[in-house]
Amino acid sequence: MPVATATATQDILQLYKQTRAQTEKICKPLEPEDTVVQPIVDVSPPKWHMAHTSWFFETFLLKQHLQGYKEFHPKYSYLFNSYYNNVGNRVQRDQRSTLTRPPLRDIYTFREHVDEHMQQLLQSISEEKLQEILPVLQLGLQHEQQHQELLITDIKYILSTNPLLPTYTPQLVKKTTQATKANFLEVPGGTYTIGYRGDDFCFDNELGVHDVQLEDFQIMNRLVTNGEYLEFMQDGAYQDFRHWLDEGLAMVRKDNLEAPLYWLQQDGEWHRFTMHGLQKVDLNEPVTHISFYEADAYANWAGKRLLTEFEWEAASQVYPPASGNFVESDLLEPTAADPGKEGMQQLYGDTWEWTYSAYHPYPGFTKAPGAIGEYNGKFMINQMVLRGGSCATPENHIRTTYRNFFHPDKRWQYNGIRLASK
Amino acid sequence: MPVATATATQDILQLYKQTRAQTEKICKPLEPEDTVVQPIVDVSPPKWHMAHTSWFFETFLLKQHLQGYKEFHPKYSYLFNSYYNNVGNRVQRDQRSTLTRPPLRDIYTFREHVDEHMQQLLQSISEEKLQEILPVLQLGLQHEQQHQELLITDIKYILSTNPLLPTYTPQLVKKTTQATKANFLEVPGGTYTIGYRGDDFCFDNELGVHDVQLEDFQIMNRLVTNGEYLEFMQDGAYQDFRHWLDEGLAMVRKDNLEAPLYWLQQDGEWHRFTMHGLQKVDLNEPVTHISFYEADAYANWAGKRLLTEFEWEAASQVYPPASGNFVESDLLEPTAADPGKEGMQQLYGDTWEWTYSAYHPYPGFTKAPGAIGEYNGKFMINQMVLRGGSCATPENHIRTTYRNFFHPDKRWQYNGIRLASK
Amino acid sequence: MPVATATATQDILQLYKQTRAQTEKICKPLEPEDTVVQPIVDVSPPKWHMAHTSWFFETFLLKQHLQGYKEFHPKYSYLFNSYYNNVGNRVQRDQRSTLTRPPLRDIYTFREHVDEHMQQLLQSISEEKLQEILPVLQLGLQHEQQHQELLITDIKYILSTNPLLPTYTPQLVKKTTQATKANFLEVPGGTYTIGYRGDDFCFDNELGVHDVQLEDFQIMNRLVTNGEYLEFMQDGAYQDFRHWLDEGLAMVRKDNLEAPLYWLQQDGEWHRFTMHGLQKVDLNEPVTHISFYEADAYANWAGKRLLTEFEWEAASQVYPPASGNFVESDLLEPTAADPGKEGMQQLYGDTWEWTYSAYHPYPGFTKAPGAIGEYNGKFMINQMVLRGGSCATPENHIRTTYRNFFHPDKRWQYNGIRLASK
Amino acid sequence: MPVATATATQDILQLYKQTRAQTEKICKPLEPEDTVVQPIVDVSPPKWHMAHTSWFFETFLLKQHLQGYKEFHPKYSYLFNSYYNNVGNRVQRDQRSTLTRPPLRDIYTFREHVDEHMQQLLQSISEEKLQEILPVLQLGLQHEQQHQELLITDIKYILSTNPLLPTYTPQLVKKTTQATKANFLEVPGGTYTIGYRGDDFCFDNELGVHDVQLEDFQIMNRLVTNGEYLEFMQDGAYQDFRHWLDEGLAMVRKDNLEAPLYWLQQDGEWHRFTMHGLQKVDLNEPVTHISFYEADAYANWAGKRLLTEFEWEAASQVYPPASGNFVESDLLEPTAADPGKEGMQQLYGDTWEWTYSAYHPYPGFTKAPGAIGEYNGKFMINQMVLRGGSCATPENHIRTTYRNFFHPDKRWQYNGIRLASK
Repeated sequence: MPVATATATQDILQLYKQTRAQTEKICKPLEPEDTVVQPIVDVSPPKWHMAHTSWFFETFLLKQHLQGYKEFHPKYSYLFNSYYNNVGNRVQRDQRSTLTRPPLRDIYTFREHVDEHMQQLLQSISEEKLQEILPVLQLGLQHEQQHQELLITDIKYILSTNPLLPTYTPQLVKKTTQATKANFLEVPGGTYTIGYRGDDFCFDNELGVHDVQLEDFQIMNRLVTNGEYLEFMQDGAYQDFRHWLDEGLAMVRKDNLEAPLYWLQQDGEWHRFTMHGLQKVDLNEPVTHISFYEADAYANWAGKRLLTEFEWEAASQVYPPASGNFVESDLLEPTAADPGKEGMQQLYGDTWEWTYSAYHPYPGFTKAPGAIGEYNGKFMINQMVLRGGSCATPENHIRTTYRNFFHPDKRWQYNGIRLASK
Repeated sequence: MPVATATATQDILQLYKQTRAQTEKICKPLEPEDTVVQPIVDVSPPKWHMAHTSWFFETFLLKQHLQGYKEFHPKYSYLFNSYYNNVGNRVQRDQRSTLTRPPLRDIYTFREHVDEHMQQLLQSISEEKLQEILPVLQLGLQHEQQHQELLITDIKYILSTNPLLPTYTPQLVKKTTQATKANFLEVPGGTYTIGYRGDDFCFDNELGVHDVQLEDFQIMNRLVTNGEYLEFMQDGAYQDFRHWLDEGLAMVRKDNLEAPLYWLQQDGEWHRFTMHGLQKVDLNEPVTHISFYEADAYANWAGKRLLTEFEWEAASQVYPPASGNFVESDLLEPTAADPGKEGMQQLYGDTWEWTYSAYHPYPGFTKAPGAIGEYNGKFMINQMVLRGGSCATPENHIRTTYRNFFHPDKRWQYNGIRLASK
Repeated sequence: MPVATATATQDILQLYKQTRAQTEKICKPLEPEDTVVQPIVDVSPPKWHMAHTSWFFETFLLKQHLQGYKEFHPKYSYLFNSYYNNVGNRVQRDQRSTLTRPPLRDIYTFREHVDEHMQQLLQSISEEKLQEILPVLQLGLQHEQQHQELLITDIKYILSTNPLLPTYTPQLVKKTTQATKANFLEVPGGTYTIGYRGDDFCFDNELGVHDVQLEDFQIMNRLVTNGEYLEFMQDGAYQDFRHWLDEGLAMVRKDNLEAPLYWLQQDGEWHRFTMHGLQKVDLNEPVTHISFYEADAYANWAGKRLLTEFEWEAASQVYPPASGNFVESDLLEPTAADPGKEGMQQLYGDTWEWTYSAYHPYPGFTKAPGAIGEYNGKFMINQMVLRGGSCATPENHIRTTYRNFFHPDKRWQYNGIRLASK
Repeated sequence: MPVATATATQDILQLYKQTRAQTEKICKPLEPEDTVVQPIVDVSPPKWHMAHTSWFFETFLLKQHLQGYKEFHPKYSYLFNSYYNNVGNRVQRDQRSTLTRPPLRDIYTFREHVDEHMQQLLQSISEEKLQEILPVLQLGLQHEQQHQELLITDIKYILSTNPLLPTYTPQLVKKTTQATKANFLEVPGGTYTIGYRGDDFCFDNELGVHDVQLEDFQIMNRLVTNGEYLEFMQDGAYQDFRHWLDEGLAMVRKDNLEAPLYWLQQDGEWHRFTMHGLQKVDLNEPVTHISFYEADAYANWAGKRLLTEFEWEAASQVYPPASGNFVESDLLEPTAADPGKEGMQQLYGDTWEWTYSAYHPYPGFTKAPGAIGEYNGKFMINQMVLRGGSCATPENHIRTTYRNFFHPDKRWQYNGIRLASK
């Protein structure tokens, strides 16, 4: 059931519980010590994610709508507000590892406290009131799902910095993969309508539905694989300025990049750190943990280009994706395409797909008043749009109109490449 | 005469001489000591600009096409190449102030040497050959014009860091200015064709002519003034997070911004450093030397928004600009709009106008092969498009399809604000 | 019993057990989450200290001298070596918070493992062999004591960065303090012998016994108090360049210093963060958590000066200290002098005393061969000597010849001020 | 004539003129463009040195003692004050290259203005008044001499950053050098009196005459040569942690050091940039442009040690130096020792000799009141003492009690190595 289609109290409560339980499932394999560090500013401590998502419900629902509600702890809003200036001062983003207290067990208690009161709220309010708070409630659930994906990528990063290279979970049975031939599928030019037009939940950044004119183009039938990316590496592409945006080249040189994040050579063979420990690179699996710069350089090297977000959305209208390798598969890493399948694959799941579109407002975009208005709009600069979800995304979280966004140098997300041609 | 319309040898030679002379005119008021420093990495030493523009003609024309040509000095290509990886190693961008030698007088000799040989080349080649080299020759002249604008902004920055606040040139007679009422002009929605479609020179980034669909919108009849911007300041807007993009707010706080670049308060009154020394802020003149972040925050505060580059170009089709305050006025600062004029003003000249469009390739954009291909394409990330030219732009350099671009935090250019509504 | 006087096996074993138990006592109040973070590079995670001190015994004793000993874990030497290049590669100092694994409970197991085998070693070796390994064993115990002091100061720092300002332990009953009048005691000039001349343990940096000539001087009878330091603050001394070394002034301005570390004003009154939470500043207690720069500026402001380390050691010969407020008091903060006492006070304990002596080798200083030689010598630059121990120092760890050392900008240790006159 | 022995007006005036003329002689080979840049914060623009030394006379003599004197320009004190907080605000040290104006020719005019008025002052004051101002006048001349040495080293650095590697002056005829055998001369232990005891000028940091006790030691008969240092390099010493102080090793790794400053390999042979351009390294000349860390590492590698400043001064009492290769030789680079000479060589001149002594106050050191008191005392932290003068030092500027000082990482001065043994 898509998050947003639940409207009856019971459905919503069930959805709430499922969503909250999923967060705890993700954190279960962790030691308390794992939940507190912040190796880079992009990564938040898992404990912080667990508390922050609860703070969201406490702040925007319980304190507003549950009569007599007392906040769990008077300092938690200061500790666990992320970036909502409207809500007040807070721990600076790069200081989240100072929060060794409250200990993890207190955060679990906080979660229980919030969950009990959310249940109380939902069971006590009128249908009318329910409809009034539904948008914020849905936003809270979507928000928690976004943090579930961040939890996975942040845990991966935290474990990767540890010299012991610890395993998050053992791998489910690993199948031998096979190569799927790349080919390019036609998307006819014309006028396409962009943005969300349904009745369910969507983020404000998907609104401002508008038409764009596109010319004919071709889109690759699957994601670019590790094997293809290895050819790019072995061709000396990281050293060849011709393929790179100028700022990408500067990053490559400053950070001595020569491979995707998490790749390392051992005994002359490329391995990658995965959620299941260090493994040999599988040439048929999609390449991931690359920056936009690397995606763009790869496309240039291959004589192709990246899609714009409008082309991606148009393609998803021509080739509507049904399902994909999402977090529910419990694989937590991208999987190889299926050589037995015709046509489009992997448009959903496996890896987010970098587009050559800046994350800017659609025409007519307006921010909600107050804190909720800070959700998306204030980040609409210097970031690039990604589409399609990944192996860390909940299936009922994604839409073809969904706009994810990261700075072009970020590599710790499950981001990958799909090519366009002419 | 627009640069690009010259095709006969005599016309071209005259254009070449005029263009080159203009560079030297700009540098005339400088001391040799002024021409060598680099107070921030964005700013290049004037001496470097003078040499680099000559290096361009030597490298891409004389060494390729003038038989028997010997380069002026074997090391100059290393010293004065800007960013062309295809041409080889070079002094790093942030190291340009190490070039105290060659002294300024040698750079003038270098310029003469290049000019004499360019004259020789132009006078000796066949008409056919002329047509062959014309694109690069035109690019060289356009390139020199771009550096003329940079020279002016870089000289302004250099002088501004000096505690003596020296005057570049005395001001031409200063008229009293008057306020022009702001109003918003209609631009009807529909399909507009974007990009350069003429036969004269344009940059590669203007190509990839394509249609865009726009909805109705309204555009302000003039640039935002210092007076209007002062209201924004006095309303505490620099301290009010609600108006700002998140990265803009971070910049405001880190750099303690409270006014445009070059503004300083003296005896309780706002002054600004100009090319003619420190002056009281004129409330009717357009605000300039602001970042994209400030432009966007101003628009939010005013309950309006910035235009996209497509809207700007569409507006210029509906209200075609004729002339403006360009470098030829010798004013070197933006001027007040004319209250006596109806309709659109200042679309050309005075200040570049920040748009809310990322500097990305148009559909079908392709780079030229070799070094010339490095001219524009590799900068198409993290920068915002500006339109319309400024008081430091040569008049025959601008077009309505011209795309200037800077990172959103840059303030040392003559950049300003025009608002859109609805 | 001083660590170094134990020579019989039973005594040594008892000393070993006591010393190791003390480390665990210090860590007992911590949550696992507290033991893994590293808020500044000077501070190491408590878990790391616990493991590193065990690594020391494993590396320099068990692996060398206990036949058949297998190291606890093949990677621990990489994880928990501090700075011994002779022993091999290691986790970089600023990367110690990456070690979320092994979890704390594994480190306790590691400690038990080492302790059992140390017991086995000590109970199985011959008297002759015991004498051979005694110097390294004593060094291991002294080393663990040094890390006990660091544990306390690092825990204090970690807790202080937490917005909840958590208490390490409740305070023992707090007595009302009284002021002790400052006066200056004579130390006659002449030749003094500096350095350690006994038969027990000392560090290599105390050797190179040598004579120095001193002139008459006077030494303050107690440490400078918070009350005296507050006068310095209230006199505007942090803003008055005349009192400061140039680099001290630069630090004051860059970091906006206006009080010792851990001081903060609340409702117009100065408080300080202590091991027992936030408390009002007690004017009679010694000031602590100040840099050398602040100590020197205070002395200049007071018209006095700091002692050299030679003067301090000479004074300790004239006024031999018996005891002091060391870690055994369980107070963990400096205490007020006793107004009822005549003569010298606080020479031992309460706070380390900054001297105006660089931490350089004594004449004839030689480093031991191999890794042990890296213990002290390679740090003999840019650091200042401190004398006398603090409330975090074990009593049997200190000597009047003991040379502690820190960079002049460091504030997180229990460092304080004693003045000299003439 | 030593600066300080001049007491009659005519002698003083002559000395003044000679000293001032020497500054201008040093700057003569420069282009105006050379005089304005500041490639690293340690290096000041030559134009700034020329103005600052004149500012010193204007500020501390003319404005105080010449009736009716008007300062040359009201802003010059702001522009050319170096670090005297007592005198007021000033251009920040790292902003000196902003001073492209006033142009060099104005600085020459400023110098003439000051010189004319100084002449007027000296010729008009009474003998009694002369004696009163003599200490400051002498300080002004010594100060100018210190800046002459800095001018030479700063010019060298500025030219060295230029890819053209320009020559400051052509080399005087170059003799073939010969090796001088190293041996170690005895200095007997005992009590030595340290500090300046004469009647002429000395700096305040040489005062506080006091006795030190030294043990017997041996001192090398000459400076360490390039040839000897090359052996150290070729033995892999820059990569071998055992020889280095910990902070030295960190600097070596961070900056990829592998040779002294200004050394570069060309066609497999080591060259060094000199005041006369790039030259092959002469193996018999003293090594120079090294940090304290390198000097100390070399001594460790050689199985020796550096002297303390007290040992150096004692050695100069046992082996009094007569002359040396000072700036008057016009060689501007260190020269080889003379194999024909017995006994001690190069104690004076060629290169300053790093000692293992921190630059701290002598016992009883007091600062002068007011601005003059800022001359030395506030720098007495984190710096190491050097002794003996260099090829850039004026001969009448040096004494055996003279204490030069730099941070241990500084390499742009003419600093070198002399070893002690035992």
